[in-house]
Amino acid sequence: MQLTVNTSKPYNIFIERGCLDTLGGRCAALFPAGAKAAVISDSNVFPLYGERVLASLRAAGFAPSRFVFPAGEASKQLSTVGEMLGFLAEQGLTRSDFLVALGGGVTGDMAGFAAACYLRGVSFVQAPTSLLAQVDSSVGGKTAVDLPQGKNLAGAFHQPALVLIDPDTLETLPPLFFADGMGEVIKYGCIRSRTLFETLRDAGSLAPLMESILFDCVDCKRVIVEHDEFDTGERMLLNFGHTLGHALEKAHGYTGLTHGAAVGIGMVLIARLGEHMGLTQAGTAEQIAAVLRKYGLPVSDDASLDEVIRATALDKKGLGGDLRIVLLRSIGESFVHRLPRAEFAALCRASLAPEGAR
Amino acid sequence: MQLTVNTSKPYNIFIERGCLDTLGGRCAALFPAGAKAAVISDSNVFPLYGERVLASLRAAGFAPSRFVFPAGEASKQLSTVGEMLGFLAEQGLTRSDFLVALGGGVTGDMAGFAAACYLRGVSFVQAPTSLLAQVDSSVGGKTAVDLPQGKNLAGAFHQPALVLIDPDTLETLPPLFFADGMGEVIKYGCIRSRTLFETLRDAGSLAPLMESILFDCVDCKRVIVEHDEFDTGERMLLNFGHTLGHALEKAHGYTGLTHGAAVGIGMVLIARLGEHMGLTQAGTAEQIAAVLRKYGLPVSDDASLDEVIRATALDKKGLGGDLRIVLLRSIGESFVHRLPRAEFAALCRASLAPEGAR
Repeated sequence: MQLTVNTSKPYNIFIERGCLDTLGGRCAALFPAGAKAAVISDSNVFPLYGERVLASLRAAGFAPSRFVFPAGEASKQLSTVGEMLGFLAEQGLTRSDFLVALGGGVTGDMAGFAAACYLRGVSFVQAPTSLLAQVDSSVGGKTAVDLPQGKNLAGAFHQPALVLIDPDTLETLPPLFFADGMGEVIKYGCIRSRTLFETLRDAGSLAPLMESILFDCVDCKRVIVEHDEFDTGERMLLNFGHTLGHALEKAHGYTGLTHGAAVGIGMVLIARLGEHMGLTQAGTAEQIAAVLRKYGLPVSDDASLDEVIRATALDKKGLGGDLRIVLLRSIGESFVHRLPRAEFAALCRASLAPEGAR
Repeated sequence: MQLTVNTSKPYNIFIERGCLDTLGGRCAALFPAGAKAAVISDSNVFPLYGERVLASLRAAGFAPSRFVFPAGEASKQLSTVGEMLGFLAEQGLTRSDFLVALGGGVTGDMAGFAAACYLRGVSFVQAPTSLLAQVDSSVGGKTAVDLPQGKNLAGAFHQPALVLIDPDTLETLPPLFFADGMGEVIKYGCIRSRTLFETLRDAGSLAPLMESILFDCVDCKRVIVEHDEFDTGERMLLNFGHTLGHALEKAHGYTGLTHGAAVGIGMVLIARLGEHMGLTQAGTAEQIAAVLRKYGLPVSDDASLDEVIRATALDKKGLGGDLRIVLLRSIGESFVHRLPRAEFAALCRASLAPEGAR
């Protein structure tokens, strides 16, 4: 399956079993023969797929090198990007060379940011190997690192030149990471496709449906990104569940709660808040919670509400003193709602505090 | 005097004595009332002009903060930008807030890069206080930091929202830094304006001509940047003297030779190389050298030619195995010439080696 994303610089996305082996050949259509290709990967993913990708690049006439960093969100810092940039310079990459991000969201976000910054911008290819990266972070050109003050606070918009999604890589994904990605898959159903939501709710095994589910998610993201490449409007819908999700991740010090799990809880909470405001159809939060539970994702958390509210203060979705949150009218239909931060905090306390504390 | 730069996001440049005091008022036309404004400056410039700028911002209803880093090229590293980003996050800046770069090229390049990265892009104002920054780095949206492997190897294209050039600040500029900027001023004459070149050659005191000279330089840069915002063609003309200039700076470990001095020597050397190739009018290198000498700039250097040639290997103007250099036909007329790196090295040896070594 193939999609084309028509952003300022259009690019193709291929979703095919085994397509990692076609990476070199597909790059040959985009980059000059003999170009240098720096494969950026982490210590979990490179041992699994690194040599295949290097071989594919070599077979297509490129000169590949590798940069492997320690796996994990803790690596997602400016200093790791600094090491990557130094590596690229040592390898002598020029503006006609390119990077390949082989791995999950952390790899894609950092390699993409390094590609955005190196020589003020070189091309990069996304080869996402986690479900989260395949349905979300590899498409749309958002790149980032974390700062001590919060997640993804520094980065760039930098569209990839090509995205290769190989569903076979999901077979090596630990169950916890698969569930993590399912948080975002369920999100697409919530914000834009009741059909996808119902498929997820009713399906037996996902395995035979996986290519089609990946396609639906990526196509949903494609449409939204095409309408709003630089995140000034509609793209905010993709942040459904993220305002409180990011805050929960922060409250947990970015450990103990995966991104997908945090977003899942964030979706339930914000749906409950929407129901409390009378803007979201009653029962929506419970429908979301049921599907999350089905895929092994948590639907509540014991972090202090005050701490979570404080952690939303740095949310990028802020606009001056106001906060913009994404709400559902019902499953499959979403919209952006702007409100003062103080009002948001009060609504959180009124709608989300444990029964006894209200 | 005022110019408008029509890049993807158009912006105004004001060139006026004392205009630093108008900064707050001019920002009021661009940013929401009450917005946070982070003034980024260095330990030399902030004590001279920082309080005036803070006062101007306060008077216009903004909430300014300051980030002051140690003056000097040694600060121009990713780690300093990391500190800036942490500061912006601590201050809680959102996408509707802005930065003010108050200082020379190092300040503008780093503050601009921080603005490009923070929350994937916030607005920034350039208030350049050195001649180099006023005629060159504050206009055109190139931001950068150095890597251990070379100058300006990481950065972003990020246009400012406003540029305020106050010629009065040149009065506090040490003579060495003024001469430094004159290297770039002379460059504009070389690549695009024989009139400017002759003015510089024939003028007595520059002081009464300064506003008009600044205007000519900035207007020259404006035209080139409008034609080629992302540095894929014509903008390369601005690099006249820079291929060898950057290599000289690197050979000196970025100390002992200012940027303008290095570019000046680079202009003489590349003009001599052009004359050797029969592409540049004979006598051009000597005309350039005469004007450089008049403004106290060196016209030759004792760095090893081999070392300088090696240092050009990482030049961003490279394209695969080829190098693109800027040559003059004659004073005021420039063009880009592409040639293999090996040929460039051979030409350097043939045209630039000391008499005895040829």
